Amino acid sequence: MLASKGYAAQNAETPLAPWSFERRDLGPNDIQIEIKFCGICHSDIHQARNEWGNSLYPMVPGHEIVGVVSAVGSNVKKFKVGDLAGVGCMVDSCHECNSCKAGEEQYCDRGATVFTYNGKDQNGNLTFGGYSNNIVVTESFALSISPKLQLAAVAPLLCAGITTYSPLRHWGAGPGKKVGIVGLGGLGHMGLKFSRAFGAHTTLFTTSPSKVEDARKLGADEVVISKDPSQMAQVSGSFDFILDCVSAEHDINSYLNLLRRDGTLCLVGVPEKPFAIHAFSVIAGRKSLSGSMIGGIRETQEMLDFCAEHNIVCDIEMTTYDKVNEAFERVVNGDVKYRFVLDAASL
Amino acid sequence: MLASKGYAAQNAETPLAPWSFERRDLGPNDIQIEIKFCGICHSDIHQARNEWGNSLYPMVPGHEIVGVVSAVGSNVKKFKVGDLAGVGCMVDSCHECNSCKAGEEQYCDRGATVFTYNGKDQNGNLTFGGYSNNIVVTESFALSISPKLQLAAVAPLLCAGITTYSPLRHWGAGPGKKVGIVGLGGLGHMGLKFSRAFGAHTTLFTTSPSKVEDARKLGADEVVISKDPSQMAQVSGSFDFILDCVSAEHDINSYLNLLRRDGTLCLVGVPEKPFAIHAFSVIAGRKSLSGSMIGGIRETQEMLDFCAEHNIVCDIEMTTYDKVNEAFERVVNGDVKYRFVLDAASL
Repeated sequence: MLASKGYAAQNAETPLAPWSFERRDLGPNDIQIEIKFCGICHSDIHQARNEWGNSLYPMVPGHEIVGVVSAVGSNVKKFKVGDLAGVGCMVDSCHECNSCKAGEEQYCDRGATVFTYNGKDQNGNLTFGGYSNNIVVTESFALSISPKLQLAAVAPLLCAGITTYSPLRHWGAGPGKKVGIVGLGGLGHMGLKFSRAFGAHTTLFTTSPSKVEDARKLGADEVVISKDPSQMAQVSGSFDFILDCVSAEHDINSYLNLLRRDGTLCLVGVPEKPFAIHAFSVIAGRKSLSGSMIGGIRETQEMLDFCAEHNIVCDIEMTTYDKVNEAFERVVNGDVKYRFVLDAASL
Repeated sequence: MLASKGYAAQNAETPLAPWSFERRDLGPNDIQIEIKFCGICHSDIHQARNEWGNSLYPMVPGHEIVGVVSAVGSNVKKFKVGDLAGVGCMVDSCHECNSCKAGEEQYCDRGATVFTYNGKDQNGNLTFGGYSNNIVVTESFALSISPKLQLAAVAPLLCAGITTYSPLRHWGAGPGKKVGIVGLGGLGHMGLKFSRAFGAHTTLFTTSPSKVEDARKLGADEVVISKDPSQMAQVSGSFDFILDCVSAEHDINSYLNLLRRDGTLCLVGVPEKPFAIHAFSVIAGRKSLSGSMIGGIRETQEMLDFCAEHNIVCDIEMTTYDKVNEAFERVVNGDVKYRFVLDAASL
């Protein structure tokens, strides 16, 4: 077994604290990564605090993991020691169902997606995430990372990046399309960067006038203050696609109203309570309310390669493990531009 | 002006009663139809009783109209006197926006769709529907009807038919696809017939065990009693497309759960209250909740031609105008298989 150290939640109530644990031995198809950086995703907080009601403890959060390959199993082909590698939200799946064969392992038809932490592997052992100094993962769920980009700023691409890249690609964001991005946070700022990089006319929706300038700097063609009914009315019926990145409660009928005929509103944020949606909101204009969850491994690699080619990374604030609980509070308060990244050197 | 007689609601409270009124003079692009039959759609009742809050009185309901062309304007090319013709839910639109140019006049971007009744034409005059002995309509919004089919049973195709045909076509119901139809009423029984005719494996969902035999006779490959959780669980995650034809309140999360990855649930019924939908219901499996409203004129003609070719009509119960208020009550109680048709000879 591989000795590991990290930060863990021992239950829903206490803050994260240092914890020593073991990883599985390196198998023939595995690689071992010496973790350099790990992003803090809002879902780390939800799960550490059992806000989704499905938490398994002890929990080592973290699914935005980048580092250096430190060992490879005998069958490994894609990686060699010294390569940069990453791990996102999943570390395994059934490999056999239609969705897995289609490279959409996050939608495994058998529900056998193994999440990077707060999951159980195929032997029934708890999975532990990236708030630690190393990880062992099957090479088919590890991603290659280009040395061209700032490594720490690549980390959040593994979740915030793919979560926005995948639906923008799936629904064809590109030249001639008008795309809306709702919310300027960890997800929203990446949605904005990708939508622009794909060539779509991109409008950022925010409740905060203070974010207008930042949104423009990040490339928004237009910024709409969503609390202003007259600004919303001006863009009514004009969007092909809206990516809703907000996890707080909000009215989505007002965004459905902004779609053109056959337009799609895609949810990637998960508010606690259900949305109230009137049938007319989708019947008038044959609109769709959809959702998307991260992205498959093949597409995650495509996204990382796209980022290397187009020099796209997350905007991050570096932090250290002694401040992880403080960082959690700041994420809850929306006080970060736009993603915290933990430096494993501080472990 | 053309003298017309029909049945009208003078306000939301009183029953329909005989009423005499006038139609516009025949214009150069108009045809005049001697109405033979008109279907009773549930929306006739909602609007006669102002249950949608947008009713204009006096109101002559009816948008499932078939009859014989009795006069044609000087520019008319598609019709001659003696032809069979029909009128559906719309009698005009802007003709100029992207949706109208695309043949999707029901989604007119300018909101200028003129509905067959309870609407205003481009001169601001109230439109009057098919519960009457004649109608004048621009030829571009009139449909050609084949003499091959039973004329009375064609009438409900103009609304119930196109409302189900259009979404099944749009979302590609056909061989190799698994389609669900929710509810066996006026809309549902047509959805079932079309889905089967298109070659899709078709499952009918009903709350009523008493409808199982009828559903099988109408061609359902499978029938699922939606109140039985074990029957619902057996078909979980298996549908490409579900057409929800129910206007009563019901839980649609349980139907979203029946979709495969990338599946679509399309609403054509309009319950009064909004649906409560949790984000995970669409995020898990990248599903879509969509809606569809009737269909464009070009597609309505395509549907009528398809029906003539495949010998498809509605299952109807004929009735007469002296019993129209009784028929309304029976529609509200779901007591008709599956559509009432009014015989204009009884006026």
